Amino acid sequence: MADTRLYFKNDYSEGAHSDILRRFSETQMEQLTGYGTDPYCESAQQKIRVACGCETAQVKFVCGGTQTNQLVIDTMLKPYEGVVGVTTAHINVHEAGAVEFTGHKVLTLPHHNGKMDAGELRALIDTFYADESHEHMVYPGMVYVSHPTELGTLYSKEELKAVSDVCREYDIPLFLDGARLGYGLMSRGTDLTLEDIAQLCDVFYIGGTKVGALCGEAIVFTKNNMPKCFVAQIKQHGALMAKGWVTGLQFDTLFTDGLYMKLGKNAIDTANMLKEGFVSKGYELYVDSPTNQQFVVVDDAQLATLSENAVFEVWEKLEDGRTVVRFVTSWATKAETVEKLISLI
Amino acid sequence: MADTRLYFKNDYSEGAHSDILRRFSETQMEQLTGYGTDPYCESAQQKIRVACGCETAQVKFVCGGTQTNQLVIDTMLKPYEGVVGVTTAHINVHEAGAVEFTGHKVLTLPHHNGKMDAGELRALIDTFYADESHEHMVYPGMVYVSHPTELGTLYSKEELKAVSDVCREYDIPLFLDGARLGYGLMSRGTDLTLEDIAQLCDVFYIGGTKVGALCGEAIVFTKNNMPKCFVAQIKQHGALMAKGWVTGLQFDTLFTDGLYMKLGKNAIDTANMLKEGFVSKGYELYVDSPTNQQFVVVDDAQLATLSENAVFEVWEKLEDGRTVVRFVTSWATKAETVEKLISLI
Amino acid sequence: MADTRLYFKNDYSEGAHSDILRRFSETQMEQLTGYGTDPYCESAQQKIRVACGCETAQVKFVCGGTQTNQLVIDTMLKPYEGVVGVTTAHINVHEAGAVEFTGHKVLTLPHHNGKMDAGELRALIDTFYADESHEHMVYPGMVYVSHPTELGTLYSKEELKAVSDVCREYDIPLFLDGARLGYGLMSRGTDLTLEDIAQLCDVFYIGGTKVGALCGEAIVFTKNNMPKCFVAQIKQHGALMAKGWVTGLQFDTLFTDGLYMKLGKNAIDTANMLKEGFVSKGYELYVDSPTNQQFVVVDDAQLATLSENAVFEVWEKLEDGRTVVRFVTSWATKAETVEKLISLI
Amino acid sequence: MADTRLYFKNDYSEGAHSDILRRFSETQMEQLTGYGTDPYCESAQQKIRVACGCETAQVKFVCGGTQTNQLVIDTMLKPYEGVVGVTTAHINVHEAGAVEFTGHKVLTLPHHNGKMDAGELRALIDTFYADESHEHMVYPGMVYVSHPTELGTLYSKEELKAVSDVCREYDIPLFLDGARLGYGLMSRGTDLTLEDIAQLCDVFYIGGTKVGALCGEAIVFTKNNMPKCFVAQIKQHGALMAKGWVTGLQFDTLFTDGLYMKLGKNAIDTANMLKEGFVSKGYELYVDSPTNQQFVVVDDAQLATLSENAVFEVWEKLEDGRTVVRFVTSWATKAETVEKLISLI
Repeated sequence: MADTRLYFKNDYSEGAHSDILRRFSETQMEQLTGYGTDPYCESAQQKIRVACGCETAQVKFVCGGTQTNQLVIDTMLKPYEGVVGVTTAHINVHEAGAVEFTGHKVLTLPHHNGKMDAGELRALIDTFYADESHEHMVYPGMVYVSHPTELGTLYSKEELKAVSDVCREYDIPLFLDGARLGYGLMSRGTDLTLEDIAQLCDVFYIGGTKVGALCGEAIVFTKNNMPKCFVAQIKQHGALMAKGWVTGLQFDTLFTDGLYMKLGKNAIDTANMLKEGFVSKGYELYVDSPTNQQFVVVDDAQLATLSENAVFEVWEKLEDGRTVVRFVTSWATKAETVEKLISLI
Repeated sequence: MADTRLYFKNDYSEGAHSDILRRFSETQMEQLTGYGTDPYCESAQQKIRVACGCETAQVKFVCGGTQTNQLVIDTMLKPYEGVVGVTTAHINVHEAGAVEFTGHKVLTLPHHNGKMDAGELRALIDTFYADESHEHMVYPGMVYVSHPTELGTLYSKEELKAVSDVCREYDIPLFLDGARLGYGLMSRGTDLTLEDIAQLCDVFYIGGTKVGALCGEAIVFTKNNMPKCFVAQIKQHGALMAKGWVTGLQFDTLFTDGLYMKLGKNAIDTANMLKEGFVSKGYELYVDSPTNQQFVVVDDAQLATLSENAVFEVWEKLEDGRTVVRFVTSWATKAETVEKLISLI
Repeated sequence: MADTRLYFKNDYSEGAHSDILRRFSETQMEQLTGYGTDPYCESAQQKIRVACGCETAQVKFVCGGTQTNQLVIDTMLKPYEGVVGVTTAHINVHEAGAVEFTGHKVLTLPHHNGKMDAGELRALIDTFYADESHEHMVYPGMVYVSHPTELGTLYSKEELKAVSDVCREYDIPLFLDGARLGYGLMSRGTDLTLEDIAQLCDVFYIGGTKVGALCGEAIVFTKNNMPKCFVAQIKQHGALMAKGWVTGLQFDTLFTDGLYMKLGKNAIDTANMLKEGFVSKGYELYVDSPTNQQFVVVDDAQLATLSENAVFEVWEKLEDGRTVVRFVTSWATKAETVEKLISLI
Repeated sequence: MADTRLYFKNDYSEGAHSDILRRFSETQMEQLTGYGTDPYCESAQQKIRVACGCETAQVKFVCGGTQTNQLVIDTMLKPYEGVVGVTTAHINVHEAGAVEFTGHKVLTLPHHNGKMDAGELRALIDTFYADESHEHMVYPGMVYVSHPTELGTLYSKEELKAVSDVCREYDIPLFLDGARLGYGLMSRGTDLTLEDIAQLCDVFYIGGTKVGALCGEAIVFTKNNMPKCFVAQIKQHGALMAKGWVTGLQFDTLFTDGLYMKLGKNAIDTANMLKEGFVSKGYELYVDSPTNQQFVVVDDAQLATLSENAVFEVWEKLEDGRTVVRFVTSWATKAETVEKLISLI
């Protein structure tokens, strides 16, 4: 018997937005050159440059998030360098060691609601260089943040600028993982724009897989700093698609008529409904997330109720016996699904 | 001005077959679990098992050919082992060193129209073990063949069995790269079936990207020999798709109602028309290819004529000054396109 | 002008014990086979087997500590596994990322005076397997402890057995880094013998570089578990010496007539003098180290006095403004040097 | 019963020259700073600079040949580059895949008596860049030659200059493996000096292990081109010795009063005696080697005679049934041993 519960498990459970599917049909029999050299990739790259307010940005498309992180980090780090991230960073916990697989250590800092503190970053770097034995240690060579973070939280412009300033001071590139970037950009009250991100970061990626695409992430190098022979390096990492336009076409669609932002907005609107609904029903928020991931602390009775009616992720057991659960909305979430859930709990 | 020449450059220039696009639309709003745990992957796996006549086959889907080769070779080899292939092997020449990137040497044998000779393989292994210093050398740990080969040629059942027998004798897995497998299986006169391949090889992949899919390759382990913790290893290689069903659904479609074979047949039919056309117009074949890649030796005048009318790949300069060119048909090639080309040259 | 201060910086500042130098002279013109196949390696291996009370132990010699850690960890882990160590572990901090260089993550636990707690280890493993997403994480595949630890502390037999028991329960090998093993074995009051270590660990190494050899570490596999084709793997890691007997001869000497233990004893005796001297002069110990590394907490005046008279390592700045410094004795430290230092401070 | 046959198997069978052993004794109780920061390393570096006629040369010491090749090649190549060597190159055949272990392909050229032809090198590079698909291939990023070669042959100054010129033209570093450099430099009739090598190569190493040291190779960067943070990278490769002065002191000795050249001369003198002896007894040379490795073609009767009286290496079986054997002299070979051998065969 099929599971009829309401589905809030993640933001990669549905297919692609209709506009994308339509364009796959429209372009089906066009004969395009391979490996990202086609006009759709070119068009998408240009639209992304405009959206970022960075006419010189270098844009490449690959297929998934872990692949992107592995590729960007490995090709931008020198061999003896590691990447600095917070303990909860996706690269540190949930990528099966893909960064270490390419030879680099993840150097960790404590997280603050999923975020990195610029002061702690500075201290880590200062401590490293002050250590007489630092030639025997892993050099901090890049900083990795995600926006939204693993906990759905967002950097303010000031916070990201502070991290960026430290990176600039030490000439270390700042990399922002934007697997869910659309949901960050459309969060109510955020003061951090795509243009800010392009300015403050040296490289970042715009997530497609979780924001309406079948697959695909757009890597944006903002400082004319794309690694040398990057196509060869993408191939070497097993990440170069023969039909490069499969990703290019999707991003061309996402960045036409503001679709990417519209999709982001839907997830935010439904997430806010969900958050308010939880609060109205007496549920306690674990963290006040402004994006599409909502974390709720539940007791056993609440957990049972929720489990009966919805599919979601169990995030963590707290020491007091309660449980943190995660509900996720997406570009595809319908308001009525949220309303129904709230009515049931 | 747009290039209006007839396009025979490769078999990954068009999009996906209509059945695939239709199913993307049909399933658009279904909520599916991630990372290949969905029903479409399961269905596709079962259909592939049936098609291979191997009910215990373990099937996984990834996104591209180089990725597949890198993943399979690295996860099946022990760290101190290399993979044996012919000099023209894709992994040896055209994958940007993706195999070496994961730490393994490609040990080479001469090619014979793109194929490996079983006797030479045996000699390589025997010579290795006979060498007193072999502990200082790279152990031959896997054999890699492609079918069709880089030159469009095919192994006969007897030839592949001979290679397989050597592998069995030395307990070395045999890996068949089937990026264009559909075109090999539907070649007229081939006596090597999918079932034979499943029986003779320890692992192989069924190419989707070049045979009607947007992207995707199906890796088939035939001897209950899928590497341990393989999902973690796929992720570690950056090759695990969140929306795993994107590839699963495509293979489910390709293996419904014999679509994969039909697509293969179209490429073979048009390739044969092309071959006969070239011969009838006095062109000399470089190799008698029974599949969708046709190699022709042309003088400068012929090259000029062809270049005016078609897009194709320049393969190699011969010492006599002539040029080898490659024309490729695909699942999407129309008979009239071939006819038009032949009429123009 | 030469630095005439008393030297307590580390335990690798002097050359080799006279017995070793003598044997280099005695054997100078012998013609020995290469790569560790000579009679001196064989003799040393046998002596080490006897000393360990493990007649089936497999013993190999390499040149240095980081090399040993990198080699053992990489060849014993499966590709998707990481090694568990405490945060202060040498492999986690002071080996320039040598473990990650070979593709593996160091999974960290808190340290307790440099030591790992068996309960915390069990919790880490349990938490890992309980996590539904553990296929997306790094598998704990080996446990690394050092004895003595980075802080000079020692495991009791009970403590090491507790760690070993967890490893056995989960079938994860336990690796003990014995760079300073001689100093641990000869510590007064330790109840952990070389035989115990051989029994409780799956692999460990006996440090030579810091205990009287010019260079060399003896890797001991105790469970008939030396990785397959290990000589090839040593070579592949750049760690196979052509003149393998250079290390073999040194260990043959160290394990003749109890030399290794005598050298260990000298460091312990002088370290105890040093510790008592510091205490008698009112210095505060940072940790009560039973081995040859002594950590003292000093204020600025004490630091100045010490710096005038001795060479030592500044370990850490405390938040209260005081400084932790490390004094190290060795096989070569003379009692009068310690006495002189104490008289001067 | 001990093997009393005359030993010509290799040049790493005896210990270290007496001067080296003496200095180990003299310096035994000196307290030296670690990791190559001591005065002996400094002195040795300066003497090597002088010997090379290159006052700005950067010199580092490591422990073995394969380690050196792996370290130099990996740290000088960009990740997507491979190293070009001849098919017989040590790195291509006898280093257990140590270069591939660090992620790089060995791109091969045919050998000519063990040597690389500059014209073929140029053609390889030209062909690479002329290939439209070269972004899908491994970039030639370094050239590796050995001097003497695996077959004991030597580059003339003109030949090495021709290779060097190609490297300069394409801005690719030239690396010379000098595991047996002393024997090349002292070969009669060679016109290639250490100064020439320093000028023509971007990096090379001076072999100690095979020329009178216990262990140790001196890496010389001649163009102010030592890789950044090289000490960290040496450590990361497991190649940094705590007692760095163990190698430094040996090279300081080898480059005092021309010892390195004297040791080289002994091997050449005895090799020439051996060569002349073989010829006088009717043996056929396989290659006219001017250095300490002599290759002789023998029939079964000759092989039996030799095997009765000497230990040597069987190099290769020829198609005509005869065998190529290798006899090696060294810094330690005595004239009377050669005379005795010749008298016996």
